[in-house]
Amino acid sequence: MDDLNAFVAGERCAISGASGGKLSGLTFAVKDLIDVAGWPTGGGNPDWLRANPVPARHAWVVQTLLTAGASVIGKTITDEVSLGILGENAHDGTPLNPKAPDRVPGGSSSGSASAVAGGLCDFALGTDSGGSVRVPASFCGLYGIRPTHGRIDFSGITVQAPSADTCGWFARDAATFARVGEVLCNAALPTRLPTRLLVATDAWGFADEAVQIALTPMLARLSTLIGTREDVLLAPQGLSVWQRAQRVLQGSESWKTFEPWLDVYNPRFAFSVARNLVMASMLTDAERSAAALMRAEAWARMRQLLPDGTILCLPTTPFPAPRRGLRNSELGFLRERISCLTSHGGLTGVPQLNLPGASVDGAPVGLSIVGPHGSDLTLMAVALAFEGASA
Amino acid sequence: MDDLNAFVAGERCAISGASGGKLSGLTFAVKDLIDVAGWPTGGGNPDWLRANPVPARHAWVVQTLLTAGASVIGKTITDEVSLGILGENAHDGTPLNPKAPDRVPGGSSSGSASAVAGGLCDFALGTDSGGSVRVPASFCGLYGIRPTHGRIDFSGITVQAPSADTCGWFARDAATFARVGEVLCNAALPTRLPTRLLVATDAWGFADEAVQIALTPMLARLSTLIGTREDVLLAPQGLSVWQRAQRVLQGSESWKTFEPWLDVYNPRFAFSVARNLVMASMLTDAERSAAALMRAEAWARMRQLLPDGTILCLPTTPFPAPRRGLRNSELGFLRERISCLTSHGGLTGVPQLNLPGASVDGAPVGLSIVGPHGSDLTLMAVALAFEGASA
Repeated sequence: MDDLNAFVAGERCAISGASGGKLSGLTFAVKDLIDVAGWPTGGGNPDWLRANPVPARHAWVVQTLLTAGASVIGKTITDEVSLGILGENAHDGTPLNPKAPDRVPGGSSSGSASAVAGGLCDFALGTDSGGSVRVPASFCGLYGIRPTHGRIDFSGITVQAPSADTCGWFARDAATFARVGEVLCNAALPTRLPTRLLVATDAWGFADEAVQIALTPMLARLSTLIGTREDVLLAPQGLSVWQRAQRVLQGSESWKTFEPWLDVYNPRFAFSVARNLVMASMLTDAERSAAALMRAEAWARMRQLLPDGTILCLPTTPFPAPRRGLRNSELGFLRERISCLTSHGGLTGVPQLNLPGASVDGAPVGLSIVGPHGSDLTLMAVALAFEGASA
Repeated sequence: MDDLNAFVAGERCAISGASGGKLSGLTFAVKDLIDVAGWPTGGGNPDWLRANPVPARHAWVVQTLLTAGASVIGKTITDEVSLGILGENAHDGTPLNPKAPDRVPGGSSSGSASAVAGGLCDFALGTDSGGSVRVPASFCGLYGIRPTHGRIDFSGITVQAPSADTCGWFARDAATFARVGEVLCNAALPTRLPTRLLVATDAWGFADEAVQIALTPMLARLSTLIGTREDVLLAPQGLSVWQRAQRVLQGSESWKTFEPWLDVYNPRFAFSVARNLVMASMLTDAERSAAALMRAEAWARMRQLLPDGTILCLPTTPFPAPRRGLRNSELGFLRERISCLTSHGGLTGVPQLNLPGASVDGAPVGLSIVGPHGSDLTLMAVALAFEGASA
């Protein structure tokens, strides 16, 4: 075990990248839901490991990064089959949050965020269906992106909810972050920045007051960088209404994904994870229909808000990382509150990037920028300019 | 690990009994929900083990047996915190059914039944709230008793559902079985047998036809022994109605028992176990009220059926042990069918004893005798006479 408990137990997976590529000299870690040929994909659950053969091929993202010259240094702990947002894993333990050691790292890409924040590698891969890159990026003070849905090839990655699943990554600095993005998106950073900045006032108001205060200087610098600022409502129907809809849709899809495995293997889960699966199994077609209509409304709202050249910002999480080892009865509402600020990702498919740079009581909390579909590299360009302007 | 995987992993707990007692020379195993001083009570779940201190005192049953001269040879695998009827444990593995190695042993007192059936000890302690002694006794071809509720002191034993919890035991022969009973019930076997035998026709009809055929010779010998035979309905409201009521009552009590632990420790469970707990957490007061009324009816029915001197017989289980490794979707209905033949125990508190002696396709299945409250030793006397008459 590494000092951070970021990597899965056992022999450390290590594969050198091709020489002379764009990412030459960089090292990266791979969330253990993403295939690395010859190494088991454990998925954060001993019975997932047991049920799945060792992959013979790299996931597309891993192969692409290796070809570009980056080297794999290990596979990282994840919440069980990506079903978690806090980073506590009852089987593998909770990776350390190097920026706030008494707090959780966030999840489900917990070990990847921990490894990057702790300086064990230059960047790391994660997945984000309901917030699993954005939340640990906010909690560990990292750049992290949920790319446009469908932008990054998902082959060789454990599916949870196909309509919401994305593959993203973490880095400590915007330049490294963007270099990886140019390779994975197979395009160069744009030279022009957006010209319009929207502030989602409903999302701001939903965050703890201390978070609003901590993020205000970042927002001020960002408005200066973009040159404008307008207040808007992100979700006129309610952030919590969007959250309910996404919970129904993502829950139904994840139940469909995992039910055959549950049936045959009767796998072990932490009680909180099993409970969410059971609740998902009881969702009805009527609930799914209503949720799908709300998704169509959310999609339309996001397109209307975000024409080309516009970005929107909001607190990534409503609070910094909760303390480690809280009770289930304390964590339930915290999880739900977090997802009120992340559900738009799965509902609308737009890209979202966490900018690190603020803290509350010494624990990081991030500011997110959201752009229209396909604006991933624009968001990275903003991050780079923002980092430069903040230096 | 022993060859049967009957005992919990690690150093084997061994304590010699006092010399010169009534049980001198006998060895016994202890279900790992029952305290043995100085040894952890693991409860079939790694997070139960972690949450509970090593007991400083023996459970009353263990102390009483040691004082009577019997020696402990180990602690046995149980379904997770007694929540199971088949004996499959995702953490510790499934104990072998020595009489039908390709089938489950039954649970939750799985390891105790396995150890006795495999000849590793003379008798073994179990607990029975919903069938956890009766079912493995039927599946492994053993004498096994669910005593009158409250007859055997439950101190030092892990509580599941107080209104249903009992502590019972297994043996291969009726004489050993009765010797243990005389010590634990602190009384001698009666010299007179019951004079009236009732046959629960609803329960017989509910069993597989092959089981009815297999048990018919045993029933014939039993009627000859008692001298009479009358057909009755055990549950005029329906065995399945009684089962629903007991499921509500026992589920509600077990949720109340385990919820504080779930909240603090978020323990790992096999999915099927977690699902039952989640379903139990959603029961309503209205359901509990209706179930409590049905329990009052069942209690009244049983008292009416069983005046002193009367016993009732029924198949212990509707089929022999299912094959190992079936899917959750196949097991759910089997579990429910089993509990249709066991729910009267928790509902009415009367004692029930499994007589081994029949088999279907080479796998054991037992005939149960049920008597009025407090008739435990009478049932053991019937078992002894029945074994003699069958020899």
